[in-house]
Amino acid sequence: MTIEITGFDWVPDFAKGFVRDLRPRWACEELGLPYRMRLLSATSPRPADYFDEQPWGQVPVVRDGDIELFESGAILLHLGERDERLLPRDPQGRATAISWLFAAYNSVEPMMFELGNISIFAADQEWAKLRRPSLLDFAGGRLDKLSDAIEGREWLAGSFSVADIAMATVLRLAQDTDLVSSRPVLADYLARALARPAFQRALAAQLADFKPEPQAA
Amino acid sequence: MTIEITGFDWVPDFAKGFVRDLRPRWACEELGLPYRMRLLSATSPRPADYFDEQPWGQVPVVRDGDIELFESGAILLHLGERDERLLPRDPQGRATAISWLFAAYNSVEPMMFELGNISIFAADQEWAKLRRPSLLDFAGGRLDKLSDAIEGREWLAGSFSVADIAMATVLRLAQDTDLVSSRPVLADYLARALARPAFQRALAAQLADFKPEPQAA
Repeated sequence: MTIEITGFDWVPDFAKGFVRDLRPRWACEELGLPYRMRLLSATSPRPADYFDEQPWGQVPVVRDGDIELFESGAILLHLGERDERLLPRDPQGRATAISWLFAAYNSVEPMMFELGNISIFAADQEWAKLRRPSLLDFAGGRLDKLSDAIEGREWLAGSFSVADIAMATVLRLAQDTDLVSSRPVLADYLARALARPAFQRALAAQLADFKPEPQAA
Repeated sequence: MTIEITGFDWVPDFAKGFVRDLRPRWACEELGLPYRMRLLSATSPRPADYFDEQPWGQVPVVRDGDIELFESGAILLHLGERDERLLPRDPQGRATAISWLFAAYNSVEPMMFELGNISIFAADQEWAKLRRPSLLDFAGGRLDKLSDAIEGREWLAGSFSVADIAMATVLRLAQDTDLVSSRPVLADYLARALARPAFQRALAAQLADFKPEPQAA
């Protein structure tokens, strides 16, 4: 049965290539798993019953046979459990990969959310201008530690895993700053991840699914 | 083999009862699993080799036999996999619980982090005062949706699970605001979770482990 992933039919330019259905798309591309998209209108109100599938009204939701999941972290874990190419099968390798998967979602991405807030959504607000230095400083300290952890490794948990899909897509959110580019270990890690043909295919597929203009309800 | 959890020997008052070793303690208490604490000095520099166990120098790290994990979300998942009382065994129940586990960590806790920043760490800074209304507004909107999702349910994934340990400890971080108390469904859910004897035991155990004064290096 083909995996179904929800996405949007259009998003503003700043979000193109960054919507989180990119993560399960990438995982499916790594595994050669076919998937089909269920595209929601980004500009119409979400259908009321979609909130039963995804409590925040966001994407992605994934259906895999009889199983339905939301939150891209849970979906990545599910896809990793399907195939050892995305999640080591030895107990410590699995534990390390899952530790890093949560690290990407809970210890690195939250500061990227706030970076998005100050750089995009609240860019013209006084608090956002005042907040910028301390946020960049805090994020930089965290990324220094991430750099220390990655130094000398190719991937977070030995072989490439869902943790790398998560961490690379999170680090990519800092592209408008020098947070990653100024840290050679992280810049190399991110470049290595994004050079994977599966990422390139996933990115091209997301971009190809957006209509040129927002669709009215 | 007894599970080992890292914690701190002292923290400032605002953090007492909120340090994240509370989450695996709670899970162990639910299962009746004995655990021992490895307490780190909160005031001394972290031993350099601790960063090999926990990249950010934080707690908890858990050792369970030969397996070592970091990030409390990964640890909760591991403990859930040990025992169906904390993670349903039917495939959809498991998928739902893991979706909510990631939801707590990635879709609710990040705004609680920022609430901690504006309320505690940066309370005297101008940006924090200016940021407060929009952050409370955004968090409130998210919690409205959480309330809709929980309404009519006892727990997030049918039976009590690690997702509830995560979500309740996250919601508890908003205690100095009316974000939870003004939403009856969430207030009841949180009260139901925190009334569990296992939570009470875990909380008492964390508080009992703090020394009265910070310990010099």
